[in-house]
Amino acid sequence: MSARGEHWIAGHAEHAGGVAFRAYDPMTGAPFGPEFREATSDQVERACVAAAAEARQFARVEPAARGALLRAIAAGLDGLGDVLVQCAVAETALPAARIAAERARTALQLTQFAALVEEGSWVEASIDHGDAARAPQPKPDLRRMLVPIGPVAVFGASNFPLAYSVAGGDTASALAAGCPVVVKGHPAHPGTSELVARVIVKALRAARLPDGTFSLLHGRSHQVSSALLRQPAIAAVGFTGSFAGGRALFDLAAARPAPIPVFAEMGSMNPVFVLPNALARRGPEIAHRLAVSALLASGQFCTSPGMVVWTKGAGADAFAEALRAAIAAGIGAPVVHPSIHTGYERALAEVKALPVAETARGSAGAGALGVRPTLLEASAAVVASRPRLRSEIYGPAVLGVDCADAAEMTAVAQSLHGHLTATVHGDGDDLEQHGALLEILREKVGRLIANGVPTGVEVCTSMVHGGPWPASTDARFQAVGVTSIRRWARPVCWQDWPQDLLPAELRDDNPRGVRRVVDGVPR
Amino acid sequence: MSARGEHWIAGHAEHAGGVAFRAYDPMTGAPFGPEFREATSDQVERACVAAAAEARQFARVEPAARGALLRAIAAGLDGLGDVLVQCAVAETALPAARIAAERARTALQLTQFAALVEEGSWVEASIDHGDAARAPQPKPDLRRMLVPIGPVAVFGASNFPLAYSVAGGDTASALAAGCPVVVKGHPAHPGTSELVARVIVKALRAARLPDGTFSLLHGRSHQVSSALLRQPAIAAVGFTGSFAGGRALFDLAAARPAPIPVFAEMGSMNPVFVLPNALARRGPEIAHRLAVSALLASGQFCTSPGMVVWTKGAGADAFAEALRAAIAAGIGAPVVHPSIHTGYERALAEVKALPVAETARGSAGAGALGVRPTLLEASAAVVASRPRLRSEIYGPAVLGVDCADAAEMTAVAQSLHGHLTATVHGDGDDLEQHGALLEILREKVGRLIANGVPTGVEVCTSMVHGGPWPASTDARFQAVGVTSIRRWARPVCWQDWPQDLLPAELRDDNPRGVRRVVDGVPR
Repeated sequence: MSARGEHWIAGHAEHAGGVAFRAYDPMTGAPFGPEFREATSDQVERACVAAAAEARQFARVEPAARGALLRAIAAGLDGLGDVLVQCAVAETALPAARIAAERARTALQLTQFAALVEEGSWVEASIDHGDAARAPQPKPDLRRMLVPIGPVAVFGASNFPLAYSVAGGDTASALAAGCPVVVKGHPAHPGTSELVARVIVKALRAARLPDGTFSLLHGRSHQVSSALLRQPAIAAVGFTGSFAGGRALFDLAAARPAPIPVFAEMGSMNPVFVLPNALARRGPEIAHRLAVSALLASGQFCTSPGMVVWTKGAGADAFAEALRAAIAAGIGAPVVHPSIHTGYERALAEVKALPVAETARGSAGAGALGVRPTLLEASAAVVASRPRLRSEIYGPAVLGVDCADAAEMTAVAQSLHGHLTATVHGDGDDLEQHGALLEILREKVGRLIANGVPTGVEVCTSMVHGGPWPASTDARFQAVGVTSIRRWARPVCWQDWPQDLLPAELRDDNPRGVRRVVDGVPR
Repeated sequence: MSARGEHWIAGHAEHAGGVAFRAYDPMTGAPFGPEFREATSDQVERACVAAAAEARQFARVEPAARGALLRAIAAGLDGLGDVLVQCAVAETALPAARIAAERARTALQLTQFAALVEEGSWVEASIDHGDAARAPQPKPDLRRMLVPIGPVAVFGASNFPLAYSVAGGDTASALAAGCPVVVKGHPAHPGTSELVARVIVKALRAARLPDGTFSLLHGRSHQVSSALLRQPAIAAVGFTGSFAGGRALFDLAAARPAPIPVFAEMGSMNPVFVLPNALARRGPEIAHRLAVSALLASGQFCTSPGMVVWTKGAGADAFAEALRAAIAAGIGAPVVHPSIHTGYERALAEVKALPVAETARGSAGAGALGVRPTLLEASAAVVASRPRLRSEIYGPAVLGVDCADAAEMTAVAQSLHGHLTATVHGDGDDLEQHGALLEILREKVGRLIANGVPTGVEVCTSMVHGGPWPASTDARFQAVGVTSIRRWARPVCWQDWPQDLLPAELRDDNPRGVRRVVDGVPR
């Protein structure tokens, strides 16, 4: 099986469409593979209308069947074997081992959501019994749980062709919640998107679930995205990508006659703060780990560390030297898409026009889209006065900021906008001595890391992969882990409703055995 | 103690400001009481800067102290005695008994939030232990809980001078979460707002909590609201009011360089569906209860039923006759503010210009702002083609819609936008026979009521007081009940963080004894 250049609209393959485009090989710099066509507004509309028409039917599907669907998709991804890996490698130039690991993560996400819906307590069922004898007014019987919100638009990410694309975390969580999904595939990997779409369509068919539950639309221009955002059927949006892209979707969604939420995970610098004892005792080791983290996948991780802050003093020179050496020795693998290559070069040019020194430059590895790792250094005063230095350069660039003292370091932290993570390296009493800094960082990020690196996002209940604007559009929610299902659900309360017409989770006999809060007490 | 015409900005009273205005007596139609002045942009800014400056300090306050603060405010409201009731009655013309009951509800809300934060589990603590031996990568130790988001802007509501105003549900939940609050008081009851503000300021002082935690600003024009929305310090907004007001705030918030969420509860018609058996067996009784609910407080409840739908057939005429009689016998108490009076008359004129019959009109009671209860009737076909008929008339108006059959009734339901509630009256197998209707309604509302009235919002865990747009801006959240605290909090994850620097809720020894999810299992 190989990609054919097809959209999948409510169970049916369609090659037709608007402007043609092909995948791009980051190694050769040449387009390759079948011709894909931009989805037309008619195709976008048909996908969304089908999703809306069958949303009710899909919402009614028993949790066990939704779980089985998610497990079947996970199995289907494995079943594609090397074909999927080869396709994704060819389209993204990411290493085969990375793609294989990403497929395993994608399957894990699907099975975690399967387990979540099979267990069932995620609906947050709650019962408050009535009291007919209460004065002056009888107390009604009230029962509440989460219900799916309706069709979700998912935008595939360039940097995770599997885990945050067609069957990635957004799709898995939306299907788990009971919402149909319309995916707009990322044009960097249309073939991978198509292969995965077929797996989903096949799993829906095998389970005799409604075709309208899933569609994949291809597109390279903004027109497809804005047509999708304008569809009245779409109830919410999941997006992982650039600030510009996320903000554009957010603005489109807010301007609708009936606005919808956009859960966008956008840029982040993931600043790293190296405190004095750590700097003095293990500066070079920290510099080395930081560089490895920053250069991973050529900096194409959301959690890639793009800023490191330290104070002058013991170990500072050794740290800076080690960081320069590590970046200079770095080799930049090809990035996924020409637009990322262009964006990296443009961002470097913008920053280098400011009072910033380029203190190390690695080499671009093989491939047309290879990029050079870059270390830039600036004083805290310059960083404070130039907002551009406090926003992301997407790619393998690190901005080093040396501060005169702890107060200046704290001021840098205070000047930051929202980021996904902040990392602090501290030995001895470093952390205790920098309480104000830690408090500020807590206000700025979704995840605080001690003595580690920000890359490597564990998929578990306690993970937070989101943060204050512009790290994400709504820091209450996130795209990683099972709590991400909450984006696609809202509470409904049934008042004095007959037992036999209540959802199973709210009946007295609790046939699904879910955890509930009964009269205010967890059971 | 009586009102003096004062803002309270970070612990200090200020009379100065821009354009002057006074409270308005709905009985006499005359302004009365002290002169209030619109807050200037400088005053707005000072309130917000003070809130931001002390937000960190307030976030650090122990849960027990936050609980004590909320209880002190509740006690302070009681302590105002008749002065508060008389002031609110004079400003709103709501009956003294209603105001006293509302004060009790307000105090209940405050003490419910006190209990919530004292118990502590609302932070949704979760721990995933690390595993240094895991291959290929060690598993980090991850711990997560909710933290306050920062200063919250609260807009007082006209229709709940206590329960959804200065110390109402929005303020109580925000303070409980650990967020400072800047209230923009509703100009319909500035004196009431001022009296309540003094209680909060006094409670903060007595507890030696930061002054910047609370401010009250007065204002009658949009300028004060938009100045408040533009303040960078404001992290979120709570609003209860009209669709136009909520949408304006939503748009301002979305257009900010860093957008913030607006949790607005806007208009709702709370449609009522009377099914055939119920119509035949107890139509007149249903009509009577419906009219009582619709005329309560002259229709100034968010949950006031403004639409009733039934099918032709046995009992239909008797139902319609009884409804007409009940509305014709109704006496409209004065509404709270001249703008509501004007809005009601304008909305009636708009609707009466459509193919709609005015079939009953009650009388306006005493008072300059008395309004006449009104029953309008239209066919399902007219309702389907005229969106104006499917949106709220704020005041004591009911639109009756008679349908040819169940299919037409279902079509009416399908044409509705989001509402807070829907009520269904059904006897025998009515509900079983109308499964499609019930499914549609579930998609349209936050609360489904069987054989009751929508007014009367129980304050408990299972209540949902929100709904799809435009009932509220974000149906995931609500303004009633303890779950409303989630609006003002976001999750943060601590990775490999030292035990003694973790928040108490996340330490191994769990000193606050909160419920947690540990390695995926609730404890």
